[in-house]
Amino acid sequence: MIFPTVDYHRGRIKIIDQTILPMEERILELRTVDELAEAIRTLKVRGAPAIGIAAAYGMLLSLENLLRREVAEAPEYFFDREEGTSHFRGNGIKTGDIRERLNGTKKILAQTRPTAANLFWALDRIYSVASIGEPEPNSLCKRIAEEAFRIHTEELEVEYAIGENGSRYIRSGMSILTYCNAGGLATAGYGTALGVVYCACEEGKELRIYACETRPLLQGARLTAWELRKRGLDVTVLCDNAAASLFVGGLVDAVIVGADRIAGNGDTANKIGTLILAILCEKYGKPFYVAAPWSTFDVGLESGKDIPIEERSAGEVTSFAGRATTPSGATVYNPAFDVTPARLITAIFTERGTIERPDRVKIQELADKLSR
Amino acid sequence: MIFPTVDYHRGRIKIIDQTILPMEERILELRTVDELAEAIRTLKVRGAPAIGIAAAYGMLLSLENLLRREVAEAPEYFFDREEGTSHFRGNGIKTGDIRERLNGTKKILAQTRPTAANLFWALDRIYSVASIGEPEPNSLCKRIAEEAFRIHTEELEVEYAIGENGSRYIRSGMSILTYCNAGGLATAGYGTALGVVYCACEEGKELRIYACETRPLLQGARLTAWELRKRGLDVTVLCDNAAASLFVGGLVDAVIVGADRIAGNGDTANKIGTLILAILCEKYGKPFYVAAPWSTFDVGLESGKDIPIEERSAGEVTSFAGRATTPSGATVYNPAFDVTPARLITAIFTERGTIERPDRVKIQELADKLSR
Repeated sequence: MIFPTVDYHRGRIKIIDQTILPMEERILELRTVDELAEAIRTLKVRGAPAIGIAAAYGMLLSLENLLRREVAEAPEYFFDREEGTSHFRGNGIKTGDIRERLNGTKKILAQTRPTAANLFWALDRIYSVASIGEPEPNSLCKRIAEEAFRIHTEELEVEYAIGENGSRYIRSGMSILTYCNAGGLATAGYGTALGVVYCACEEGKELRIYACETRPLLQGARLTAWELRKRGLDVTVLCDNAAASLFVGGLVDAVIVGADRIAGNGDTANKIGTLILAILCEKYGKPFYVAAPWSTFDVGLESGKDIPIEERSAGEVTSFAGRATTPSGATVYNPAFDVTPARLITAIFTERGTIERPDRVKIQELADKLSR
Repeated sequence: MIFPTVDYHRGRIKIIDQTILPMEERILELRTVDELAEAIRTLKVRGAPAIGIAAAYGMLLSLENLLRREVAEAPEYFFDREEGTSHFRGNGIKTGDIRERLNGTKKILAQTRPTAANLFWALDRIYSVASIGEPEPNSLCKRIAEEAFRIHTEELEVEYAIGENGSRYIRSGMSILTYCNAGGLATAGYGTALGVVYCACEEGKELRIYACETRPLLQGARLTAWELRKRGLDVTVLCDNAAASLFVGGLVDAVIVGADRIAGNGDTANKIGTLILAILCEKYGKPFYVAAPWSTFDVGLESGKDIPIEERSAGEVTSFAGRATTPSGATVYNPAFDVTPARLITAIFTERGTIERPDRVKIQELADKLSR
């Protein structure tokens, strides 16, 4: 791993603080669910898949802290990714207490970011392990830990698969425009949109990469550019409003973005500004690709209209690095996401295959295949 | 005047430093052409019409400094707007010296910003006063001063006329989206795009105003919001990439922008990102208006392809308020303008009337009418 986007190590969730990149590479160790919730809310850890993994670890951390409080002679930590769950030897804890604890934690974490589907998917996945049947408490704890670690491990495999599927659409010599950060920092460590780029490069294809800076928090300029450089790849950063000029100049062959939630009809919520790129692709006849794990799909949602869009604080727009950027008295409109309608999407790359010209029927087919 | 965008007062060009608004309202007094050229280059004074006025005053300042050096017992200043040219009593200066001086000044100022048509228009207008016939030096100086002050005075009248022409297209209750700053700060003091807004408001129409922040230098967030608040008007600021969401939400009834240069076929260069708004207007069926004085037209240009587009420094994108926003090693794409094709423009408001669905024929007709 080039950097720990999110990891669980000896009773701590470790993240790289994404709010201060690229100025500083600082690793934070989170000891409580409240610390994690705050880190998610303030985007110290961000990106739908990474938030999902962080939430799964948040459930584990919560259980860890419960056990350490309840169990006599508790060790420094119970669960560890590298050591499996070998330190687990809890006793005297009740299955009901575990469920109650996890239910409370799930509620706290579910309130951090409303749009990312993976957050709810991961919380549900952990909670469902805890909620079925009447398991013996010790083995239940072990199963919960295994599930959290499994989510992380699987997610990384998923990203490699997305990268391979997406790379089939990428030819050497292409210029790729990406948006926000859908790379290793947003995921288990490889990336979705950037996973496609990395895979294509690993296959020897030569690409030119453009990254929109992505206001207001500049995840494209700060994070995407940082991790591309970290991998030794060249990148050109542009202000979001310069994207049209790239198209006019014939400098973009394809756009690849990640996703925060995909509705049952293929409508895709992603970072605010994504829709403009999809409209530019339509106007200038270029493919618009979405790269996302199946955990980003919310098949139960009829369309993008049903995706809740997080409105973030005015402060993200009214100042930067402590310097006012608007006069006092100005109102701010600051939605964090927009929804790209399915008809503007050329293809969605998932770990289970590529959905070209996504629609309800094709997505339902994939869902049915998975549930079989 | 609410604030001095650009003015000439007792041998000094006075400007409000637009790089530090809205944090601070600082008036600068420029004493030399080099100081003015630097102020234009660094956007302390900006906006195509304001640059035109500043350039005219730059020619006058240059003449002033020549006279003070050459004339025995020179007063503190020769030319003053409020006092007309009453202090002028130069003698011993030759017409050839004046022409040479103005020619040199014209060359210096013409190199500051390549895109704004008004810059070249104003320089040519002053220079043509100096270059015709064999005038007596003293009366020539007087005529040059009068021409510079006339450019400023006329420009303000022009803006009122643009406002009135544009306001006919604005109904009470409309939501207007504007971009960058095409207000008093960009002009003689009233505005082009914002002049339309101000005029509509003065006529009692109630408008909702949205301002895109306009990266990288945030002229929308900093300047447009500042002068709207200064006039007691409400404004909502958004990141440029959030514009599509406004359209999707039905929150925009019209877009009004200024212009830096308009080609003979109506193609319009304006701040980078303008084109995206025009494309959104086309897609969502909303009118896209340009408000500009006739001095912004460059009728000799075949199309927008012939408009030189200024590429500005990477530093505008790679840091903000001293804080790095990109990692080292990232390249930057930072054009200052883009070109909106005429077919995306619903109408251009000028002081001579409104050109609906602009094309070469309609623009040539207006040009012919003016030259008659």
